[in-house]
Amino acid sequence: MAPQLEPFFKQVDDLSGSFIDRLRKAVAIPSISAQDENRKDVFKMAQFLASELEALGAEVEQRSLGKQPGKEHLDLPPVVVARYGNDKNKRTILVYGHYDVQPALKEDGWATEPFELTVDDQGRMFGRGSTDDKGPVLGWLNVIEAHKKAGVDFPVNLLCCFEGMEEYGSEGLEEFIQTESKKFFKDADAVCISDNYWLGTEKPCLTYGLRGCNYYSVSVSGPAQDLHSGVFGGSAHEPMTDLVNVLSKLVDPKGKILIPGIMDLVEPMSEDEKSLYPNISYTMENLHESLGSETGIHPTKEETLMARWRYPSLSIHGIEGAYSAPGAKTVIPAKVIGKFSIRTVPNMESEDVNKLVFDHIKSEFAKLNSKNKLDVWLQHDGKWWVASPKHWNFTAASKAVQQVFGVEPDMTREGGSIPVTLSFEQATGKNVLLLPMGSSTDAAHSVNEKLDKRNYIEGTKLLGAYLHYVAEEPMNP
Amino acid sequence: MAPQLEPFFKQVDDLSGSFIDRLRKAVAIPSISAQDENRKDVFKMAQFLASELEALGAEVEQRSLGKQPGKEHLDLPPVVVARYGNDKNKRTILVYGHYDVQPALKEDGWATEPFELTVDDQGRMFGRGSTDDKGPVLGWLNVIEAHKKAGVDFPVNLLCCFEGMEEYGSEGLEEFIQTESKKFFKDADAVCISDNYWLGTEKPCLTYGLRGCNYYSVSVSGPAQDLHSGVFGGSAHEPMTDLVNVLSKLVDPKGKILIPGIMDLVEPMSEDEKSLYPNISYTMENLHESLGSETGIHPTKEETLMARWRYPSLSIHGIEGAYSAPGAKTVIPAKVIGKFSIRTVPNMESEDVNKLVFDHIKSEFAKLNSKNKLDVWLQHDGKWWVASPKHWNFTAASKAVQQVFGVEPDMTREGGSIPVTLSFEQATGKNVLLLPMGSSTDAAHSVNEKLDKRNYIEGTKLLGAYLHYVAEEPMNP
Repeated sequence: MAPQLEPFFKQVDDLSGSFIDRLRKAVAIPSISAQDENRKDVFKMAQFLASELEALGAEVEQRSLGKQPGKEHLDLPPVVVARYGNDKNKRTILVYGHYDVQPALKEDGWATEPFELTVDDQGRMFGRGSTDDKGPVLGWLNVIEAHKKAGVDFPVNLLCCFEGMEEYGSEGLEEFIQTESKKFFKDADAVCISDNYWLGTEKPCLTYGLRGCNYYSVSVSGPAQDLHSGVFGGSAHEPMTDLVNVLSKLVDPKGKILIPGIMDLVEPMSEDEKSLYPNISYTMENLHESLGSETGIHPTKEETLMARWRYPSLSIHGIEGAYSAPGAKTVIPAKVIGKFSIRTVPNMESEDVNKLVFDHIKSEFAKLNSKNKLDVWLQHDGKWWVASPKHWNFTAASKAVQQVFGVEPDMTREGGSIPVTLSFEQATGKNVLLLPMGSSTDAAHSVNEKLDKRNYIEGTKLLGAYLHYVAEEPMNP
Repeated sequence: MAPQLEPFFKQVDDLSGSFIDRLRKAVAIPSISAQDENRKDVFKMAQFLASELEALGAEVEQRSLGKQPGKEHLDLPPVVVARYGNDKNKRTILVYGHYDVQPALKEDGWATEPFELTVDDQGRMFGRGSTDDKGPVLGWLNVIEAHKKAGVDFPVNLLCCFEGMEEYGSEGLEEFIQTESKKFFKDADAVCISDNYWLGTEKPCLTYGLRGCNYYSVSVSGPAQDLHSGVFGGSAHEPMTDLVNVLSKLVDPKGKILIPGIMDLVEPMSEDEKSLYPNISYTMENLHESLGSETGIHPTKEETLMARWRYPSLSIHGIEGAYSAPGAKTVIPAKVIGKFSIRTVPNMESEDVNKLVFDHIKSEFAKLNSKNKLDVWLQHDGKWWVASPKHWNFTAASKAVQQVFGVEPDMTREGGSIPVTLSFEQATGKNVLLLPMGSSTDAAHSVNEKLDKRNYIEGTKLLGAYLHYVAEEPMNP
């Protein structure tokens, strides 16, 4: 039975002006976590959030994470945790967002002042942090306010976890989640994260999977110092020659990974999964638009999405130690370090991938018969994540999308990683849902970041409706 | 008949203290051509040279080369030209050197102040420019002074061409040489350049050949902007994948150039030439010492020297546009530019090499079936140079070496290029000799640059003796 959402929806519409004001105030605080001089603004933003939540009647705490590792003169921004409602008869939903933002300067190419929310005649609200992630975070606050003002009973207990270091590596957050999963977050029945984007601009999606990432370095070294190519070219083994050779054996121009055994680790596609792709609202034009070119590998949207979501990929990012400036320099670099990463998917275990990578690279290097020295190591890894999209958490969100937008959401995965997703899943043992508010054209991290008014206001309705459906969903069998 | 050199040699020994003082004064002027703030010092050094030459009785002019292209607020340092002697019955020798130096800072790792000549107990004279190229330039002045003070008739007319921009691309010099070859330099019967080094530390050499250099860029571009490897890895053609593939097809790990047709352009080795290599004073230990490793390609010194001097080589210098910093960044670079160069030898013509390079790269890229775009172009080229070591200019220098050092010099080539060599040969049409003063351990361009006292003082004798033998050599048939 569909919950009675009309009073809540109407209240959101009535309050839309003040919700946009709330976003305007938040965008005006340049809470850039990567820049030391803005650390005070990150704290200011935490205080803004805490005050707003308190004014709405939530219990709020600002939890210190201590000093910033490697920059001990800086305090890490606090995690703002809040509880709204404490009714044992209601489900408890833990929501995550972040209140810090990427750097932004007008002169980077912004059409408007990045820290002044500017709404154009198409309802696009430009401003740093509008979509990533202040809009979604404030969405939860808006939901509380609209319920209070409409006099509608809040359908769940809400736990909030809003961090201030997401754009700078989420320092200290994983340990915090681990600890609080048995304390502040212990009642959570499910988790909802609103910090990603629709696949396109029209149709909402629910995201149930992310790829992982294993990042490698491979170094080749020979001479004790850089050499002059005139003097030594032809008489010494050159590390760059060897490295380029080894890197050329990793992936072919069609994206096929050449490391033996890697594809054997990949979960085979079921007929069930295969049937999901044709219905996804995505076109090759969408790909070409986002690439700015027609250099896609695959001819169909289905293959493109599979390549992005459910198959591994290998990218070569660059080379450290070689000549990288414009112009011409006749150097033989003494030591060069190639960087590449593999996006991982079920059921690739990091250790298995590492072994295959190391063995392959060492074997290819051995074939070169070079006197240089090769080394290869893992820089970092992060595991893939796939949730059950049949869990009540997803079903509730799906119904909410249908209620608010009149369409069934696309069930999507993403090619990149959002490490906090896995942290919450592992720490709480509960289902995690990614429920995006913004659209694919929002330009998070880029110039002219924006959130469409529709996405913000209807998105607020979506978050509220989701909580109502959550309250009604039966337990999973 | 050997010329009577004893009075000159004795005078050099007697004046050795004041010759070292002359070098001390020159080193104290930080005539760094690459740094704007030192331009006044480069001018000061020109004035120092001009004054010294005038005091010795030479006719001296400081020739302006105008403003520095691209830095119009800076005047180019003058070319100091001088004539010493104007006797129609004597040969005229044109000598070249440069009075500017590389940058140097104590904190780069110098054991002594770089602009204070510091002589240690092994007679090593440390200081920036000591060996490159102030020592050799002052050597010519010392020769004049010793002749005057010994009352020995100067055996030739001497023309000097000392420039102040050698370490920064010899701006404007080629045109100057071209013009003056018909004016100030028109009487020159041969050219002598002292601006390179012995192959080792004990035995002098005469250098009669240099490799040329063709420097290439190859770019691969695809998407309109850098991409996130999580989002696009596996679904878009990656420029780095293609570039690494193409670069791996240029040269094998043993230094063999893989571009079809390149080796057909190389002059075959004659038995005569082959017989030169075993006698060269050079060992595999010398190679390993200069590499700081045992990563030489060839097992024998002969093959090593041939690879360095008379065969082409191909070095990959680096990649522009890819991620080159330490750490990890999950970027798919949108456009990457590989840099490589080919060291050229007789009889490789630049246009022929270019055609083979372009054809090969385009053909290898076509095999990849990538939708990305490839471009390849020549950044710059400089021709190889080989002089006749049987010319009287070389014979005179060889006899001088035997007279001063008691050994027959090695007849060497070099793997790198000294573009001014070819400029003089082409402009004057005369034989050019490279007659080094310093040794292989002098660390030109590096920290702790030095010139051994022996090399400076015996080198001054060598330059003088060379002029005497020049005066006595019969014309070539």
